Parts: sequence; C-alpha cells; structure tokens
Amino acid sequence: MLAVHIERGRVGVRRRPRPPRKPGHALIRLLCGGICNTDLELVRGYYGFRGTPGHEFVGEVAEADDRAWVGKRVVGEINLACEHCDWCRRGLGRHCPHRTVLGIVKHPGCFSEFFTLPERNLHVVPDEVPTEAAVFTEPLAAACEVLEQVEIPPGDEVAVRGPGKLGRLIARALEAHGCRVRVYGRHDQVPRASFHWVVDATGSAEGLRQCLEMTAPRGTVILKSTVHGAVRVDTAPVVVNEITLVGSRCGRFEPALELLRAGKLRVDDLVAARYALGEAPRAFRQAARPGTLKVLLLPPALQ
Amino acid sequence: MLAVHIERGRVGVRRRPRPPRKPGHALIRLLCGGICNTDLELVRGYYGFRGTPGHEFVGEVAEADDRAWVGKRVVGEINLACEHCDWCRRGLGRHCPHRTVLGIVKHPGCFSEFFTLPERNLHVVPDEVPTEAAVFTEPLAAACEVLEQVEIPPGDEVAVRGPGKLGRLIARALEAHGCRVRVYGRHDQVPRASFHWVVDATGSAEGLRQCLEMTAPRGTVILKSTVHGAVRVDTAPVVVNEITLVGSRCGRFEPALELLRAGKLRVDDLVAARYALGEAPRAFRQAARPGTLKVLLLPPALQ
Repeated sequence: MLAVHIERGRVGVRRRPRPPRKPGHALIRLLCGGICNTDLELVRGYYGFRGTPGHEFVGEVAEADDRAWVGKRVVGEINLACEHCDWCRRGLGRHCPHRTVLGIVKHPGCFSEFFTLPERNLHVVPDEVPTEAAVFTEPLAAACEVLEQVEIPPGDEVAVRGPGKLGRLIARALEAHGCRVRVYGRHDQVPRASFHWVVDATGSAEGLRQCLEMTAPRGTVILKSTVHGAVRVDTAPVVVNEITLVGSRCGRFEPALELLRAGKLRVDDLVAARYALGEAPRAFRQAARPGTLKVLLLPPALQ
Repeated sequence: MLAVHIERGRVGVRRRPRPPRKPGHALIRLLCGGICNTDLELVRGYYGFRGTPGHEFVGEVAEADDRAWVGKRVVGEINLACEHCDWCRRGLGRHCPHRTVLGIVKHPGCFSEFFTLPERNLHVVPDEVPTEAAVFTEPLAAACEVLEQVEIPPGDEVAVRGPGKLGRLIARALEAHGCRVRVYGRHDQVPRASFHWVVDATGSAEGLRQCLEMTAPRGTVILKSTVHGAVRVDTAPVVVNEITLVGSRCGRFEPALELLRAGKLRVDDLVAARYALGEAPRAFRQAARPGTLKVLLLPPALQ
C-alpha cells in the first residue's frame, strides 16, 4: 500500500505492507484525509517526528473485532489513551499522560491507504454528511472545544484573531452557537481593550500579544494554536486587567458531527485542493503556502 | 506634616502642607501604613512614579462631607474610579480606565501624616480588629480575590508558589476557605503536572514557568503577582494541557475585613518591623531585603 513518509524535513511516499491489526483495533481504509498545520509543523521537526503523518480522516472500516463496524464510514478521535489512569477513568483520555496520538506521537497516521485505530475511538459518519464535510470533524471538534471549556452566552460578541482554516472553523462554530463573531487578520488594527472574548488562532507569538491587547479587563483569551518555543509575553496587563487565558486543544467529536449533520455550518468552501496520496509532496507544498485553506489527500482508487 | 517622597530611585521624607480636601473626599490621619512590593517597585521606577507612595493603611477620619465619618477608624479601597463609565456602573470601578490609584497612579499615597480618599472608598474597621491586623486588609483583599474569580471547592488541594508576604496571605485565605494548601519556595522541587490549582505569588518570570510545569492538565494557574517587562513563556504546554491562566489583582475589602473580624486567620506573625514615617528610608531598605515580611510605618505621634 502507499503511505506518506516524513523524515528529516522531507515529505515522501513509500510502499509499505498493510499495518498489523491489534486486538480492539480496527483496520481502516482511507477515504479522505486533511492536511492540518500540525502536519506542516511535523515536517519542520516538531516532536522529532519521523514516519507517516495524518490525523484528519474519513475512512471505511475494513476489519474489526466487532464485525458491526465493518463497512461503516467513520471518523476517529486521535488520542490513543491507556484507559487505566485517572485521566482515562474521568473520561479525559485526551489528556492521558501515556497516550499515543494518531500521526503525531508513536502511532502511524492516516495518510496511508490503510491504518489502525482503537474501535472505541471511532464514530460513524451520519449518512447526511458528505465525506468531504466529515473530514472536517477533527478540526471542527477542536473548534467546538472552546465552547466546552468556556461558557460564552449566545449573543455575545467574540473576536477571532487568525483568518486561517482553524480560525474560520472556530468563527463558524461560534456563529452556530449564536455569537456575533468578528474575524481579524494579523495586520488588522483593533481597538485596545475592546472585546470580552478573544480567540487566538494565529499560531504566532505576535498574535497572542495582539489578542491580549484587544481584550477588555476581566476578559478571556482562548489560546487555540500552539506556538513552538518560548514566547515573550508581558504578563503585567494579564494581572492588572485580570484577564483569563484558556489553553484549548482537541475536542469531543459528538458536537462537531452534530453540527455537520444538522447542516448548521458550511465547510465545503474551505477546501482549497485535492491530491492523490502519491502526490503528497505537492499537496504539502501547497498547504504550506500562507493563506491556503484545507488541502485534501485522496487514496489512489478515489482520484 | 511629614510625607514620604520617592524621586529618581530614592526614598526621602519631606515636610508638606496638609492636602486640600475635595468634595466627597475625606481627610484621613494615618494610624498605620504597610510597605508592599509594589512600593518597592515604585522606587525602582515602575509607572515612572514620583511623589508620595503608600496604599496599605489604617487611618482615622479627620474631616469629611458626611460628618458621621469623622473620628472613625477606617481602611480604604485604593482605586479612585470615575463613577460614570461602563465599568463603574457594573460595580467594577477597580477596572475603570479613568481611575487614579492611591499612592500608585496620580493620587498621593498614605505614607503621609494626612492624605485624602473618596468617602465611598472607606470601610470602618470593626472594633474587634486591632490596627496592626487591619493594615493587612488591602493585601488580604487581593488574596481573597482569587476565590472571587475562581471557584475552588473547599477541600481541594492548592499549591502556592512564593513564600513571601502575599503568598502567605493567599495560603491563609485559602486555608480559611477550607483548602489544603502547600506553599513552595522558588528553589523547591515540585513534581510535574501534580496540582489542579496553582497560585503564582513569586513575582518572577521563572516562578510562572515553574507554576505551569507543576499544573496538571485542565488545571488552573492564578497569576497573583506582576512581573515587569515581557516574560518568556512556552505557551505550547498551556494549549496541549488545556491549562487556564487567571490574572488576579485587587479585591473587594468586605471578605477580607470579615475574615479578620471573625478571627479566621492570623496576621500578627507577618509583621517584620515598625518604623516611624521619618525613618522611611531605613524602613524601605529593610522591606527590600529578600525574605522580609511586612514592614509597618507609624506616624510621629504613635511611635
């Protein structure tokens, strides 16, 4: 089978045997994959990554312990939790300290004709949701996580800084929740101390500084994108203005799938391009160009 | 009258006329003042300060529009709000963008035989509370603010990093609330990701880094002390572990006065030394020595 391979900053494609299926895991055939900024950062050496990337996917179950899964169109949560620690017992396997992560930490990713994931990680895609919409489930779940962590009253105004893929999904999830959303780019001037709710989806140190500046006293900044390495932040205004910063990462898939099923937000206009798995190097190059929206990878048979 | 004066990094004492009393303001005679870390930072040039510092006090009202205040032993909130803006209307004058601040921003401080403050800022000290306990009302209110901003269930374990004056008051306020508190110094080793609640009272950039490290996923760090200038913070673990950072500053005086009145916490053992106003330069030198607890300033008549 074909599998994308990242090594020493280069994206390649290799022929590999199908991965062995462990008990409790499903073997999944890729239907559609999405390239995320994290994948681009893996190329840049984040996590010392070497291997097959990819964690946004829609697939079809080829083999599973529970035969009811076979043939189902699925999406899957990306954290492989140990299921035994305190975090797992509290239903927060996303924070399990022993977890591996699909295509990021010690578990081969989905940019491959076949890959495996625990059956308990899988969610069936409702028939109403096209594959190219369902492939947004994982980033949309991350967008919805904002609303799981912070109670933003519907009707409130929210500023989203960062008009990229994730910023737009967050803006749309917040709009679906009833918020009045304003999206700002990196170069937009925004009045100081003017928003009670600000989401940083810029992925830049400068973006976080700008977000703190536009936040009103007692306001909340939700940090939605990781910046690698230490960032210079002036914490004095955080204390003086009693600002709350909330780090926010992955989310549960259920609210995201429900938004897609109910047609409460559009995602089709976020697709920038489609490539075959074998063209992954070109796909990654396009995805890395600033301002590019979602680049999809399709298996050979579906080109 | 005698008044402490800070100019170009030097602490001096001057003779001054009594300040004029504006309508709605009380003229207050100092009974006891407390030197805070912010005062030490004013000496170092924070806010470009020049003038009379001091914002922790117990005083006796000498003159007021409302005669009922005269002769009363009082403490006072330090923010002089405009009373007209949105923040003031919402009862959050502490965040009024037009505010001046006693002994910090454009309003002469309390390290002076007489000073003024709006009558609406004053609180009568209950008879049960000695003056040298009541002088802790302002920093204790800042300590109690943690519990106004963040709902920490009684019984929960909280780590307080920074064993100084403010750190100890915070620890005692949290203990009075029913928390199990552990106080750590700057050099103490603390297991990673081990606390759900962490308070940073170190006043150092390194302290914040340590606090983030000892916070469990989904935990909360309360930033209680300002660090001046930009600090290098690695925001990636904040996002990955979904940590919440809460900036926390001044607090309402009522809960602090009630804790002191009910005898729910000790403060007498936090007094390191007493000096006359005229000895302010020595008092400031002692207060600036690392590890020094509260240094008090007393007016000439009460030495």
